[in-house]
This record gives sequence, structure tokens and C-alpha cells, in this order.
Amino acid sequence: MAIEIERKFLVSSDAWREGPAGKEIRQGYLCRDPERSVRVRIKGEQGFLTVKGKTSGIARSEHEYEIPLENARELLELCVPPLLEKVRYERWHEGRCWEIDEFEGANAGLIVAEVELPDAAASLTLPPWAGAEVSDDPRYFNLALAAHPWCEWGTK
Amino acid sequence: MAIEIERKFLVSSDAWREGPAGKEIRQGYLCRDPERSVRVRIKGEQGFLTVKGKTSGIARSEHEYEIPLENARELLELCVPPLLEKVRYERWHEGRCWEIDEFEGANAGLIVAEVELPDAAASLTLPPWAGAEVSDDPRYFNLALAAHPWCEWGTK
Repeated sequence: MAIEIERKFLVSSDAWREGPAGKEIRQGYLCRDPERSVRVRIKGEQGFLTVKGKTSGIARSEHEYEIPLENARELLELCVPPLLEKVRYERWHEGRCWEIDEFEGANAGLIVAEVELPDAAASLTLPPWAGAEVSDDPRYFNLALAAHPWCEWGTK
Repeated sequence: MAIEIERKFLVSSDAWREGPAGKEIRQGYLCRDPERSVRVRIKGEQGFLTVKGKTSGIARSEHEYEIPLENARELLELCVPPLLEKVRYERWHEGRCWEIDEFEGANAGLIVAEVELPDAAASLTLPPWAGAEVSDDPRYFNLALAAHPWCEWGTK
């Protein structure tokens, strides 16, 4: 089992935009239960089926399987609507790869940056465009953004 | 997408018992929603992750992926309890392969036979041990047997 250790930050400026193009991601959930979520994702031309266990702090168990693109399209149609759409950019900073997700649709305007760490205590140098940390804020879980999109939040 | 067309019958005698040994199956559900169920199964030494869509009559969409056995063991622990345990026997009759499931645990005593058909109108010769058809009875869905095991049914 892979244990995913991630920290998540808001993005406070456009300084990250210069760099390689992003990849379109469309994803949905067959199961939104945070203790056993099942995600279907199309990223560029690849399909994935991912099972995640309960989040414990910034760590979470994850099993991801690549599946045929055509299967992923069919499974997306079975997902609980709405689907989540975003463009993912990768930016390197001080030896770590940051994934910047620029959301679309009902979450348009929201930009979040995530970085995966080898262990929960790993040191991290923040890039200049990283804003407030939201690792522990469940509203920013992709699972939650599908059900309660950013545009519907009372306060931002 | 595979469309699964199955008919299901109760088993009315022990006449099927002579024959090859069965395989132990342990399975659970990450998602029990009948419109998008996600099943984890260990059958003998193989692991599977299976997504099924809504049942329409005796037809149902199904996507099944073989996964490493160790993954399947971990995913079973994420499933909504209880798990379903049964032994599956295969018996041929008149050119069709019947799967006979002898349930254990809370469903002990229940024996159900399923046969997969090439299309909904395919002819079928019943074996002598096949009893009442229960294809349309949702209580016999494995999904339902996990949540409401046979031993708890008021009338049998």
C-alpha cells in the first residue's frame, strides 16, 4: 500500500505561470465516503481508478490503477455528478515537484498547489507564490470540492 | 464496456455436489450504491476490483480489473463491513457453465446458482438441481446479502 503524504497551499500570485503547459484532468467519484473514496480520473490521454482510505493528518493510503481510456470514459458516466475539471501544472522548486491545480467549472477561480513528501517530517522550502497552507482544511479535498464547489462557499 | 447478462436460481438439491472442488471467495464493497457498486474480491489467489453499473432487468454493465493479491487484501480492510464469504463451484450443463455459490458466515445455508448468457433472449436448459428463479429478486444481489444477510430474513 502506498501512503500518500501531501501538503497543500493556496496560490498567492501568478509567478508560477511561466513554464510548461498543463494537462487537462476530468475526474469524478464512484464513492465519496472519505474512509474509502473511489475516484475515476482522465488525465490527458490516460485513465485511472484510485481508491483512497481515511486521511490521517497529511497521510492517506492510496491504491491507483491505470485503466484503458475508454473504460475511464464509461466509468466517469457512472460517477456521482458533478464531475471535477481542472488543469494541472507541474513546477519544480528547491528539488520538489509541485502540482498546481487550476480548477474550472463551479470551482473556477480556485488555484491550489500540492507537494508530495517522502515522510511527514520532511523539510520543505516554499516557493514565492505559495500562500496559506490548507492541508488540514477538509473543504479543499477534491472530494469536497465536487460536492460543495468553491463558488458556493459563503466566505472565501 | 462489458454487459453482464445473468440468470440466477436457488438450488433445490445436492445433486450438483459431485464434481471439482470449489474456490474460496472473500469479497466486500467500497461502495454499495447499486448504480455504481465497487467490489473488492479475492478468489483463490487472485485479487479483483470490479465496478458495476445499474441493473436493468438481467443485464448490468461491469468493469473488472485484476489487481495484486496484496492490494486486494488491503482494500478488503477498507470495505464497509461485513465481508461476504462463499465457496464457488463450477458445473457444466448442456453447454453452459453454472457458478454455484455456497455462502458462509451470516448467509450460511444459502446456495445460489448463476449462469451467464450471451444475450437476454438466449435459450437455457435448467439442470435438475435448479430451483426457483430469483434473477429479479434484489434480496439475492450479493450487494444486498452483505448488508442484509440471509439469516436475518423474516421468511425464507
